[in-house]
Amino acid sequence: MKIDYTEFHKEKKDFLTKTDKSKKGNIDKGIRSLVQTINSKHDCYTTSSCSGRIVLLEKRSEKKQEASWLFSKHGKATSSEIKHALQKTGKHQVWFRQESCILHIRALNLVAAKKLLDAARISGFKRSGIVSIGKKTILELISTESIDALVAEKGRIVVSDDYIKSLVREANKKMDANEEKITKLCSLVGKL
Amino acid sequence: MKIDYTEFHKEKKDFLTKTDKSKKGNIDKGIRSLVQTINSKHDCYTTSSCSGRIVLLEKRSEKKQEASWLFSKHGKATSSEIKHALQKTGKHQVWFRQESCILHIRALNLVAAKKLLDAARISGFKRSGIVSIGKKTILELISTESIDALVAEKGRIVVSDDYIKSLVREANKKMDANEEKITKLCSLVGKL
Repeated sequence: MKIDYTEFHKEKKDFLTKTDKSKKGNIDKGIRSLVQTINSKHDCYTTSSCSGRIVLLEKRSEKKQEASWLFSKHGKATSSEIKHALQKTGKHQVWFRQESCILHIRALNLVAAKKLLDAARISGFKRSGIVSIGKKTILELISTESIDALVAEKGRIVVSDDYIKSLVREANKKMDANEEKITKLCSLVGKL
Repeated sequence: MKIDYTEFHKEKKDFLTKTDKSKKGNIDKGIRSLVQTINSKHDCYTTSSCSGRIVLLEKRSEKKQEASWLFSKHGKATSSEIKHALQKTGKHQVWFRQESCILHIRALNLVAAKKLLDAARISGFKRSGIVSIGKKTILELISTESIDALVAEKGRIVVSDDYIKSLVREANKKMDANEEKITKLCSLVGKL
């Protein structure tokens, strides 16, 4: 498929000037430099981004839309923050989660996509791939750090205070590793 | 890049007749039909596959190679199996993990890759993408079910028996969801 360079740039400009429709409403601080670096390139732009986060998710069912956050932080957490948020536990299951950075990037073409994919892989974003080809070339870059641990059920916290401390300590370590990868990717993309 | 159809087929034949070098040494039962269906197509073949599993991983460090499995099952588990395996806990951290199906597929070209990617997405393999383009076109298909929960630290089990029961019950539910997605993908690929 022929890629129209002028059309791509118009769409990039339109996209980056429109209002941020995410729940948070702006780009996470921890990923701002990387997003700016990607968007400074002529052949790509970010369409969504999350720097990584620690959350407490109360699930009413397996459906994503039937879940609510008791806690969400785009950075390291403390066990007292988690314990405090857990007081809001309802009657459903609550999961403690550490999620790593996720980025969606539109690339001008497959050449541009390949360059980004290689940089992502070198930086440790192991779950990265081209998720759409054809009219638009879209990449998804994800790192592999994660924690998914049950912490409450039927309105009752099912883990000890010490367990929460350990979980938070491990989640914070993973957030550090995630941050290092973001910095590395930012540096590599800057040199493209 | 020009794709040589004869060369692709020679490489496919060579790959599929060589000895399975995975630790397990053969294709997981839960994914055998899907692998056979993919390999029956003229324009793709699987290069690695895992049907999904429940594991207990003892980590000596954050490095993947410095971890050992206390338990690994490509299917549903029971809490007594997990409790029994936890008796082998050494002095390091042990994590209970449920991992979903992961497949690597080489496609003849981007047209073949796109067809598989669309089928994967419809089947619920949300973390799917083209991970290599150029000389070889490779896809990675992954589903999103996962559990990563700390269960032992410094030689001590840090969760209750009831917690292990809940974790196993949730992991088995996720294994069921994973199996449904494999069946759906197998049916869709069959129709391609």
